[in-house]
Amino acid sequence: MGWLFKSKNKVYKPVKDVDLSPNSDEFYLRANVKAPRMAGFLIKILAWISESRIFGAMLVYILKDENLVHRLISFAELDEPPLFVPCHPWEDHNLKEVKSISCDSSPPEKVQQALECLPPCSEIVGNTSCPSFQRWTILDYSRAYISGEITPLMVAKRLLDSVHESSNPSLQMSFFINQNAEDILKQAAESTHRYERGEPISVLDGVHIAVKDEIDCLPYPTTGGTKWLHKVRACVNDACCVKRLRSCGAILVGKTNMHELGAGASGINPHYGATRNPCDISKVSGGSSSGSATVVSAGLCPVSLGVDGGGSVRVPAALCGVVGFKPTFGCVSHSGVLPFNWTVGTVGILSATVEDAFIVYAAISGDIPSNKPTTSLPKLNFPLLKSTNSILNVKMAKYGEWFNDCIDDIKKCCYQTLDQLREHYGWETIEVTIPEIEVMRLAHYVTMGSECNAAIRSHLGKMATSELGCDARLALSIYGSFSSKEYLTAQRLRNRHMEFHKCILERADVIVTPTTGITAYPIVEQSVNYGDFDYKNAAALVRYQIAGNFLGLPAVTVPVGYDKMGMPIGLQFIGKPWSEPTLIRIALAVQGLCISSYRKPKVFYDLLSKEKGSQQPI
Amino acid sequence: MGWLFKSKNKVYKPVKDVDLSPNSDEFYLRANVKAPRMAGFLIKILAWISESRIFGAMLVYILKDENLVHRLISFAELDEPPLFVPCHPWEDHNLKEVKSISCDSSPPEKVQQALECLPPCSEIVGNTSCPSFQRWTILDYSRAYISGEITPLMVAKRLLDSVHESSNPSLQMSFFINQNAEDILKQAAESTHRYERGEPISVLDGVHIAVKDEIDCLPYPTTGGTKWLHKVRACVNDACCVKRLRSCGAILVGKTNMHELGAGASGINPHYGATRNPCDISKVSGGSSSGSATVVSAGLCPVSLGVDGGGSVRVPAALCGVVGFKPTFGCVSHSGVLPFNWTVGTVGILSATVEDAFIVYAAISGDIPSNKPTTSLPKLNFPLLKSTNSILNVKMAKYGEWFNDCIDDIKKCCYQTLDQLREHYGWETIEVTIPEIEVMRLAHYVTMGSECNAAIRSHLGKMATSELGCDARLALSIYGSFSSKEYLTAQRLRNRHMEFHKCILERADVIVTPTTGITAYPIVEQSVNYGDFDYKNAAALVRYQIAGNFLGLPAVTVPVGYDKMGMPIGLQFIGKPWSEPTLIRIALAVQGLCISSYRKPKVFYDLLSKEKGSQQPI
Repeated sequence: MGWLFKSKNKVYKPVKDVDLSPNSDEFYLRANVKAPRMAGFLIKILAWISESRIFGAMLVYILKDENLVHRLISFAELDEPPLFVPCHPWEDHNLKEVKSISCDSSPPEKVQQALECLPPCSEIVGNTSCPSFQRWTILDYSRAYISGEITPLMVAKRLLDSVHESSNPSLQMSFFINQNAEDILKQAAESTHRYERGEPISVLDGVHIAVKDEIDCLPYPTTGGTKWLHKVRACVNDACCVKRLRSCGAILVGKTNMHELGAGASGINPHYGATRNPCDISKVSGGSSSGSATVVSAGLCPVSLGVDGGGSVRVPAALCGVVGFKPTFGCVSHSGVLPFNWTVGTVGILSATVEDAFIVYAAISGDIPSNKPTTSLPKLNFPLLKSTNSILNVKMAKYGEWFNDCIDDIKKCCYQTLDQLREHYGWETIEVTIPEIEVMRLAHYVTMGSECNAAIRSHLGKMATSELGCDARLALSIYGSFSSKEYLTAQRLRNRHMEFHKCILERADVIVTPTTGITAYPIVEQSVNYGDFDYKNAAALVRYQIAGNFLGLPAVTVPVGYDKMGMPIGLQFIGKPWSEPTLIRIALAVQGLCISSYRKPKVFYDLLSKEKGSQQPI
Repeated sequence: MGWLFKSKNKVYKPVKDVDLSPNSDEFYLRANVKAPRMAGFLIKILAWISESRIFGAMLVYILKDENLVHRLISFAELDEPPLFVPCHPWEDHNLKEVKSISCDSSPPEKVQQALECLPPCSEIVGNTSCPSFQRWTILDYSRAYISGEITPLMVAKRLLDSVHESSNPSLQMSFFINQNAEDILKQAAESTHRYERGEPISVLDGVHIAVKDEIDCLPYPTTGGTKWLHKVRACVNDACCVKRLRSCGAILVGKTNMHELGAGASGINPHYGATRNPCDISKVSGGSSSGSATVVSAGLCPVSLGVDGGGSVRVPAALCGVVGFKPTFGCVSHSGVLPFNWTVGTVGILSATVEDAFIVYAAISGDIPSNKPTTSLPKLNFPLLKSTNSILNVKMAKYGEWFNDCIDDIKKCCYQTLDQLREHYGWETIEVTIPEIEVMRLAHYVTMGSECNAAIRSHLGKMATSELGCDARLALSIYGSFSSKEYLTAQRLRNRHMEFHKCILERADVIVTPTTGITAYPIVEQSVNYGDFDYKNAAALVRYQIAGNFLGLPAVTVPVGYDKMGMPIGLQFIGKPWSEPTLIRIALAVQGLCISSYRKPKVFYDLLSKEKGSQQPI
């Protein structure tokens, strides 16, 4: 109804612009309560009317409208997030072999510290067997630039050519929503110049990083995968995480495609195209960070940023065969990220290797947002990865019935990996029951939907519904139907699940699950134009994702194999709040076991090898 | 609608009863998504239907119902509070002259520590002039019991007689909802026995404390002012705060009357009678902790407990001429208090003197609830009150237009007190603007109403509407109308106001306001049977209350005078989070200035004086 009353809606100015001095021009609004004082029989009649379905709704509507509830609250426009934050009253106090780094360190310093935690280069990947295929890593780029054999400018030009090629009618990969060649070449020229002077800022200098179009990154608008959001909300600055990457010298190579409004897991966007899976272009990439997963998978960037509000980083990472890392809620500043929700989404990292995820995590994390409980660490903990002893004795909790609720190929592959982990590292799996998993999925859906609706409904009044894809329209209709009671009940269920997970993670270091219940499935070609409505597949994709978002727990997915059709499979580990060091350590160990089986995607661009035959992906 | 589907609603068992072992009988519910996979033109039609007012609502209803959202979320029953807590990222770090006490101390130890912080007895009250009327204090009772001139049993018998008398047709004070004479006499006999043995537990031993019927206290049911809530929710234990008082030897003298469901500020309860103001029985007492204010005002107890969710302690305290103290949110455990809301209500104290509020605050506070951010102090701070220097240099922020938005008698009286504070103590008033006060009131109303509806709606299905008062029915109709968007917008406004108040309280120690916009007004006699619907007077009563609840700030009201009709007037101070020591110090100073003008209420019971002429109230 909002738009019916558009002209009356209160638009609140930002807090910092409000004058609190006695001479302020803020006016004092006297309460002007419009309701008769009633007692006796009259109030009995009124109470009776208020409970009737139609007249009751009308009466309440009039009371709310007359008493300014509509104008000042229901249809108001304001910037602030809600006061509440999900609160983690527990954290991993048993972190071992970590290096604590001050949050105040600069991003390049943090990156340097992270590098020093990593094992020597020769052991970085494939230390257990010879890899059959391996994407270029951040260190590969850095070494190539330092050697001078290739320059950031050359790589940037190849990127632009490759993206151009990927858009031709036979591929239609739809990797990016926006890419500004001039801006990319300018950044690359500056980086090249720094290498020429022998003064790269950090190992990230000249490294390509793509950013999901939900995160502010100049000079681009932030569309959120829509045709209209950037028209009502200008992007005026880099998001905090982007600013940090830029300060490390990284080249921001454009805004990646995403599911419209992040409201789906297929990655099919009716406005900017269905992002196609590089492993099989007839299949979905997964979403909502679809473009960010595919550009890494296809070799265009070693790393990209996504936002994970309901598996949106981990799902496409698993479907495209790359690493997806979602840190603890609040670990990475959300400043400059579209507020599609306030309590479930976190910036996450998609990368070719676990090491690269760790390096970028070091660059962008370490905030103590002002509205966060100070249970969060004022220090940032990095895992010391040099010793292999430190990965011994990992206890993984597994809920059998849930773990098995996936297609056979995934089940087989994940169990195989668990067996290998036991054989190679002696890691133990303990069986547990995690109750009410499906309840948690629905409660998360109600939460995310309610917050998304509250965040963007006021914008919707400003544009025609035709600017929205059909699946987004349907999703918004459902999101808009939630009552405050439904939202609050979801928050109560959230409390229950926090308790359940706390109990389980007291007995184990991590919870282990397949990342998704299904692998990438075929794109229905009609859906490319209208979007698709496919809650069944969506539910299977996000089946194992919810604790990471609803409870803010950190989680990582690592590629561990392929289904019969050659589509990638991911294995997920969910940790205690602030246990990122443990997760990185585990993910590295898993990668070490599986890397020898990695296959080259059908669509793959080799930006570095032509000049450096010896290092080219096999 | 909830009750239509009663049989289908999921009833969640308490977390502690859920088995997380692999052999658990919790069953794994496979996602059974009931929605066709659609793409192309079909989804366009579906999106269009979903946006139509009637068919859209039906479609969304069917989708939610088929996919178990209704059963598992919307109409589910569970115990847990929401995960979120209001977060105070700021607190008073400049507390001076405080004594820090470990939260682990026992309640009697804390009471003893509090006593040691107080000035010597002779200076406790009326140190600036001779009081014309003074209620008996905790120390008066304690001294009388120690002297042996009177025993707790004698006082308890007088209490029962007095309450009996107050219920006669000419008075109909409606102080209590439930009082068990046998239980009270038993507690009094035990206390008497302890004094006889020379072993009182603390200064609270044998002291009467009444408890609002929103707080669990054995052997009573907890009605919440309703005729039905105790039938669906049994009281099986003392609330945490009651347990603590009992452990100090206090005599719990019954459950005081309250506004039905706490959903109003007049104190008129259609089931248990309109609580009448002891200063003029034709007038309201204020609410919702109406009984708790009147029993203190009428001399039946030196102290009582209330719950303050929207001024519910401070409003009746001001209207009845007693002290009302609402600590910082989370400072007193909410365990065993009816969950009418989760984020605005706090147990508060009503008392004859500031000292007594401090002693009881010491007894009941000092929790670190598990779901509270650890910004809260692990230590409890008590003000050292011996030195009068420590009350120098208080800076009071005042928003003129708001301060003046009250009846003339209140304005005059409060300004007079500010003048006196400047004269006697040199306290400075600084002018500020607090923007959007009325917005905050509405946002608080949406929050409180949404939470109340979410908390009790599932119970409503179990009883006939005739068991509810008309004003509660109307309130619940409005409460039930709020969408998740309205609730979330209110939480965003809450964030704004937290920022505004933080800025203002960086420049001043406290915000000063009248406690209410009006004094006690006449009871409309018909309302005694049906309840009354009077949002205009309610808005004037809660005008200055909201920051205390919505932002969780501590606040105290002290009686400072009377209107032309002889009805009491209160002055309120609102502090920074966890600045209770500062507030107690300020309140003591104000009381010292005003105590000489205190008048005896028309309805007053003198439980101690007959035996002790020299100490009787003048």
